[in-house]
Formats: sequence, C-alpha cells, structure tokens
Amino acid sequence: MSDSKYQQLVAHLSEAHHLERAVAILQWDQQVKMPTGGAPQRAAQLAVLSRIAHEAFAQDKTARLLEDAEREIDGMDYDSDEASMVRVAKEDYRLASKLPAEFVAELTRATSLGRGAWIEARATNTFRTFEPQLQHIIDLTLQRAEYLGYNEHPYDALIDEYERGITTAQVAEIFGAHKPALVGLIAAVQENSDAVDDSLVHQQFDIEKQKQFALDVIKAYGFDFERGRQDVSVHPFCTHFSRGDVRITTRFHDDFLNPALFGMMHEAGHGMYEQGSPERFEGTPLSGGTSLGVHESQSRLWENVVGRSKGFWIWALPKLQAYFPDELGSADVDSFYKAINKVGKSFIRVESDESTYNLHIMLRFELETDMVSGKVKVRDLPEEWNDRFESFFGITPPTDTLGVLQDIHWSMGLVGYFATYALGNLLSVQYYNKAVQQHPGIPDEITSGKFDTLRNWMQDNIYQHGRKFTSDELTRRVTGESIQSRDYMQYLQTKFGDIYGL
Amino acid sequence: MSDSKYQQLVAHLSEAHHLERAVAILQWDQQVKMPTGGAPQRAAQLAVLSRIAHEAFAQDKTARLLEDAEREIDGMDYDSDEASMVRVAKEDYRLASKLPAEFVAELTRATSLGRGAWIEARATNTFRTFEPQLQHIIDLTLQRAEYLGYNEHPYDALIDEYERGITTAQVAEIFGAHKPALVGLIAAVQENSDAVDDSLVHQQFDIEKQKQFALDVIKAYGFDFERGRQDVSVHPFCTHFSRGDVRITTRFHDDFLNPALFGMMHEAGHGMYEQGSPERFEGTPLSGGTSLGVHESQSRLWENVVGRSKGFWIWALPKLQAYFPDELGSADVDSFYKAINKVGKSFIRVESDESTYNLHIMLRFELETDMVSGKVKVRDLPEEWNDRFESFFGITPPTDTLGVLQDIHWSMGLVGYFATYALGNLLSVQYYNKAVQQHPGIPDEITSGKFDTLRNWMQDNIYQHGRKFTSDELTRRVTGESIQSRDYMQYLQTKFGDIYGL
Repeated sequence: MSDSKYQQLVAHLSEAHHLERAVAILQWDQQVKMPTGGAPQRAAQLAVLSRIAHEAFAQDKTARLLEDAEREIDGMDYDSDEASMVRVAKEDYRLASKLPAEFVAELTRATSLGRGAWIEARATNTFRTFEPQLQHIIDLTLQRAEYLGYNEHPYDALIDEYERGITTAQVAEIFGAHKPALVGLIAAVQENSDAVDDSLVHQQFDIEKQKQFALDVIKAYGFDFERGRQDVSVHPFCTHFSRGDVRITTRFHDDFLNPALFGMMHEAGHGMYEQGSPERFEGTPLSGGTSLGVHESQSRLWENVVGRSKGFWIWALPKLQAYFPDELGSADVDSFYKAINKVGKSFIRVESDESTYNLHIMLRFELETDMVSGKVKVRDLPEEWNDRFESFFGITPPTDTLGVLQDIHWSMGLVGYFATYALGNLLSVQYYNKAVQQHPGIPDEITSGKFDTLRNWMQDNIYQHGRKFTSDELTRRVTGESIQSRDYMQYLQTKFGDIYGL
Repeated sequence: MSDSKYQQLVAHLSEAHHLERAVAILQWDQQVKMPTGGAPQRAAQLAVLSRIAHEAFAQDKTARLLEDAEREIDGMDYDSDEASMVRVAKEDYRLASKLPAEFVAELTRATSLGRGAWIEARATNTFRTFEPQLQHIIDLTLQRAEYLGYNEHPYDALIDEYERGITTAQVAEIFGAHKPALVGLIAAVQENSDAVDDSLVHQQFDIEKQKQFALDVIKAYGFDFERGRQDVSVHPFCTHFSRGDVRITTRFHDDFLNPALFGMMHEAGHGMYEQGSPERFEGTPLSGGTSLGVHESQSRLWENVVGRSKGFWIWALPKLQAYFPDELGSADVDSFYKAINKVGKSFIRVESDESTYNLHIMLRFELETDMVSGKVKVRDLPEEWNDRFESFFGITPPTDTLGVLQDIHWSMGLVGYFATYALGNLLSVQYYNKAVQQHPGIPDEITSGKFDTLRNWMQDNIYQHGRKFTSDELTRRVTGESIQSRDYMQYLQTKFGDIYGL
C-alpha cells in the first residue's frame, strides 16, 4: 500500500527515531571515547541535537499523521504491526507533547546544575550543598507529574514514563507482599553469615584475563559481536544505535572478580534484548525493549539466574581456572558458587547481593512516593534515609555519601525509575520459570554451556515483540499472569537456604 | 552588545555548526568503532542528520540574519572577528544555498551508488562496470558547477569549494611553472637510483612498538592528547568535533615502517591546526582550518619537511632504535635518512615519495579540467590516463586498478579536490622557510627534538586566524607573496640532490 497514510507516518517517525539514535551515539562517545577537552562543546552539541530530536517528534505534524493513519488502519488486529505502531507512537506522543519546551529547557538546566552539585556533595559528604538543587529538581518533578497527568497519585505519572501502564498502588502491593518474606530471609541468612567465605573472589586478577573470560561467557550466551562491541567506562551501561549496533561497557577492578564479570553478563543481557529486536521494526518506535523493568529482567536473568547459578559454574569454573590457575586452580564449584553469592549488609545498592537488592529499592520507592506526596521534605532526606535504612537493614549509614547521596538518579531528575530495577528481578525469575516449564532441559544444558534454548525462548517470547506490548501485556501473554513476587521469593529462599544451610 | 543582531546571527550559526559536528562524530564512529552490523541504520541516521544540518544553515533565516548583522557591523575592520564572521558565513551561505535540495539528494544517491561501483570495479579491474555511474556523477558535477556559478571555467566553481578564491588559471600557471623542473629532477634521480637502498624500512616491525614510537613523536610535536585521540582505521584521516576533541587515525603495516609513522605525523599536522583554532571561535564558522590546501600544508610540514629531514632523525633515530634494537640497532642516520626518502616510480599516488607526488596530482588536474571542459570523455579515461602517465613517468600502468581506478575521489563526486594536495606541498615549504627566516634556530632545534618554536610560529601565523582569511589572503600576510612553486622546487632539488649525489 504505497504512499499510504500509515507509510507516511512510519517515514516521519523514522526521522525522529534516527535523530534520537544520533543523540545516543554522541552520548556513548562522550562516556567512552571523548578526550576530556571535548566536554564543553559536546554539551552544546548534545543540547542542540536533543532539542531537534524532540521537536522532530513532538510536533503537530506527528499528531496529524497519527490521526490519519489511525483512521486508515481502523479495524486491524491489536497485535498487528500497524495497530501496534500507531498505539505505541500515540502514547509516546502523548507524553512527549505534554511538556512545554520552556519546561524541558528548565529541567535540563536544573539537572545539569544538579548533577554537578551532587558530585560535589558526594565527594565532600555534605548533603546541604546539594539540597537547594535537589529541592528545585523535586519541585520541577512535581510540576512534571502535573503536566503528564495521572488518575490517583502524582507518582503514577512519573513511574509510567519508565514502566508504561503500571501504577503506584500496584507497585506498593507487589512490594508489600515481597518485603516481609525478604526481611525474614535476610535475618535468617545473617544468623548463619559465617557459612560463606568469599575470599576466593577477593584476590588480584589480571584485568586482560578477566576481560577475555567475560567475553568468552557472553559470546557463549549469544551476544553477537558482529552487531555489537564492548568497551571500558567509569559507569557500565548498555546502549544501542540499531539492532545491528549494540554496545556494552565494563568497569574492571584488579582485586575483585565480581564487578566486571557479572557486570559484563548483565549488560550483555540488555544487549541481547536489543539485538533480538525484529529487523522489520528497525528505525521505528516499535524497535528495542518495551520497558525498563522488562529490560532489567533480561540483564538480571543472564547475570544472576544463569550467571550466579551453580549449574553455570560446573561449566564455567574450569574455563576460569585456565585463566587464573594460581588464584583459583584449587577452588571447587561449591566454594566458588558460595563465594560469588555471599550475602552482605551493604550500605550501597549497586554493591548488594541478590537477596538484599530489592530491599534497597523498596527504601527508595517509599521515600520517593512520600516526597512526591509531600510527607517527606527534601531537607529531611538524610535523616529519613538513615532511620529507614536502620529499620530495613539494622545498620545506619555512617555518612550521607554512603546513604542518601549514593545514587545519581535524583540529580538527573529520575524519580520513579528505581522501582523498575526490583520489578526486573521479579520478572527475571518469572520468565525463567516459564521457559524451564516449557523446556525442562534448560538447567542441564546450562551445566554444559548450552544457552541457546533459553536465549531462543527469550527471542520468541520477549525480544520478537519489540515495544509492541506494555510490560504487563507481555508478562501476561508469556506467563499467564501479571508480575508477582512469589516466584522470585521462592527462588531466593531455595538458593540462599541451600547456600547458608537454612 | 547583548541581543545584538550580530549575536543573534552567531547563535543561529552555532546551531548549524553543532549539527555538522554531530555528523562528523557519526562518521568517525562509522569508520573507527562501528561493528559491521551497524552499517545500514547508520547510513539512514547520517542521511537524516546531514540533511537537517544542511537545512539548519541553508535556510532563508540565515540570509536575513546575515543581512541584519552586516548592516549592524558596517564599517568594522576587515580583520575584526565580526566582519570576518559575516564575510565567511556569507560565502558559506552563498555556496550552500545555490544547490537545490533535490539536486543534493540526487548527488547523494549517485555517489552512494558510485562508491559501490568503484569498489567493485577496482576489485575486478574493470573500468567499464564503473563507467555508467561515473558518467552520471560527472554529468551532475557539471550541473553543480552551473548552479554554483563561475567567471571563466566551470572548473573554477568546483575548485573554489575546496580552496576558496583560487581559479583554474592560477592553478594551471603554478603547475605550469612547477612541472618542467619536477620532471627534470625525477629524471636525474632515476639515473642515480642505485644510490639509495631502502631495505632498512622493509623489515618486520612490531605494530605496538611502531605505535608507541609514533605517539612519542607526535607528542613531542605538540599534539595534545587531553584534546585528542588516536585510533586505527582502514583509511587514515583526521577529524575534529571541537578544538578540544581532535581525532586522528592510523593504518599499520607489520613489514613496512613508513605508512604508520609518517601517516601519524601527517594526521597530527592536521590535528594541531585544529587544536590551535582560537577558543573564541568555538562553535562558529570561523573555527578550524581555512582551506584544504592550507590544511595540507600543515600535515605535509610535520610529515615531510620536519619528519623526513636529516635533522629530525639525528634526534629521533636513537629513540627508534631503542624500540627496534634488532632491526635498526646498527643503522646510521645517513642510511636511515636515505631509506625513508627513496624515490620510486610508483603507479599509486598515495605510495609516492615527495619528489614524484605532485606529478601524480598534475596528471589528475589536467584530466579533470579536460573532462569538465568536454575535451576528454568518461569512456576514454583509462586510455587517456595511461597515455598521460606514460608521458609523465615513462611507464604505463598494467591495469586500470593501478591506473585510473586507484582513487576514491571521483566516485564520491570530489572533482577539483586533488589540486589542494599539491598546493599544500608548495605551501608547507613556503611557510617553513618564512618561519626559519624569522627564527634561524629552528633547524638546530629540530636536531634536539625541540619543536615549539616552529609550532608556535604556526600558531601565531596560521592557526590563530581560523577561517578568517582565504588561503591566498593568509599566504600573502604570512609570506608576503602568493603561493609559488619556487621554494618547494628548491627544497626538493637541495634535498634529493644531496641524497642522490646529483
């Protein structure tokens, strides 16, 4: 149907999409390759390009083309590419067009200043120097929620940007069911904390060998280096410029094996999702992953459910020992498996283990919703953080840097984002369980380094849909129910019960 | 003068400038870092971004702002930043706005196809498969000249795009004076060709050590790695995204020392010119180098006039020997100096030495002007090429791949470009001679690895002006006369007379 309204729409959307990917290329380069001297002009280049990419999408012409195309494809199946394209682009447009340009510019200025103030406050351990900037960012965030609109709670508008369709009440319900069991498990583990010694992973490890081994692993997983690359950066991340160009980054420690190894698996999980996006969606709003939560399910699946499983290390340990015969030559699978899974009470979210991770998220979720509803004031954040941390973990952060200042998110205006990390953990096990239910041989295959049954299942059930469905639509299709914490909690109890002899 | 018309103009021009730099970032990444799978979408991203960058500049608003600003700054000194900004931007605009959008799109399509056809023709040594595409590109090039306008020769319009203000007649006059002397020198050298043995540079050289030494050299030259970086690519080049982010690339051969070493010096010469662009011109049309010829003067200066000089190797050879004790430990400066300067009759321009290089350019210049004026038909190019090559060099290319198909330029629609390479050679010696006239200590300093007097002279006389002046304006300011071949010919005669004992 040449020159149809629908085709005109897709061509128009592609232009904006290409410009957004160009922004991503400039940002990747900024973090991975740019010399320090390039910073000021790069900021200016990004400011112009981001604005132009936004304007290319959030213009009236998009609304007109959407209306015309919607009329033209009226009656088409909900699952069809055409109906999905219009539906998803319409929702994207609804959000993008609600924020006035002056407001976006003001938010950009505020978070630009905020990021600098956060870096300084964190370095000097003084929340007060960050407080005025953060107050301004939170004020703007409330304004943002008003612009975006919501039914019940202003926080609904914020979380919806990262996990479309989910509400504050739903997240609170999921977390409410999850939290008591989690707290109970952690308490039980703490009583047996001597059962696990992790000195094996705290040795000197040559970085080049770490890298080679981790690359071996993610190649075995199925990350395609003809359509991707891996580099070093200060903060590990995954980005994509197309399904044919997906990039992951890694941070190496020469005295701790876990960060680079599990970090590489994590980013490869994100990466394989992007590489699995259908070719026919390329350059359109339907390409890529559907939500932050589902994306995180893929990274956590390959990092934890697979990468931190005993079965995986039956296959992988001999290979790792070949790289590090002196350091790990005498380790057995059981000790190594326990070492990489040691539970610790960390003040820092990103350093926490699987069992405590979601508790870190719940703390932030509760604080964020209370800030947005006005129950918690920005100036009281350090105290609130520490009090709640004490009640969650039984320990109190000795400094703000180890407490309320640890995450960059708020300084960037990212409120509502944290929850998706925990949702991803829950989904990773829900999806894995479904895959194993349909292919009971998967756990055995993992012990011999075969990952294609699992990855192909993700391709057929998750990747192939791109952004067609919301997280909840997808999860119900794939597992027959919405997101729940039951599977994940059971997974944790079995795993850490075994490791800690509970 | 806040909110002046002039400031509005500069702000407007900066937006287009930032978008052009964004295009350059995508192109650098494409050639240096992109996985092969990224190619199709990157082409689409570049197509959209290039068009938008072009439109941001070549719009009516630019013309209005230029007129307003011109009135406002009326009477200001020709050399002032303000008058120069308006003058240069006006000329840029004149060229950019003369080509209709459909014509630019057609040219982009033709050269995109042309490049593919050239690659295939070159691989299979069959000019005929490239001929139809080339014919179309040449037809469009003639059309382009008509759009751009010219006084005497349509070729004037083409060469003016790369070397603003120069005419075909001027180039023909310069080359006419240069050619007989060059041919005479080459003939004399050929009679003594046994005088130089270059086996020293044709050994196995570890690539990592080659790289380290070349980096040592360009750091000593003054290439600033806080504001730049070096990578590997198939075709070496230099690009810049700001004066704080200048990137060079290198191609290494493990059995030949020259390409990477002198290639790195060459690109660093381009790079230092960009790094030396004044900070106050950042993000404006006045930033960067003024013309391809002047740019090439800087690359050839550091590659040849300095890097292939005997004085340089008095300093550098012991350092190179420390990297390659087995291969070069017993070499003396005189033999090494001769080896890197051996004159050979090469069919290939990019492999040719200093003495024959400009002859390769003259061949292309004559063919191009004859094509543009209709004297030579595209279908007769292979024969014309070989006949002229025989008359220039006394040898005939055995294949089209070693003849008319060797360069990528025509397939990309770059007609009028080649001459700037030769002009750059002439200027490199003109500028160097002037610097030495003012600082007679420079040659001695080079023998002890001191390059800052020479580099600072370039900074003060060339770099600091950015794009304020045309090549000819700059050369007359700096040397007191226009470009000429006398200095370069004298340099070649002295140098090769000494090496070949003429």
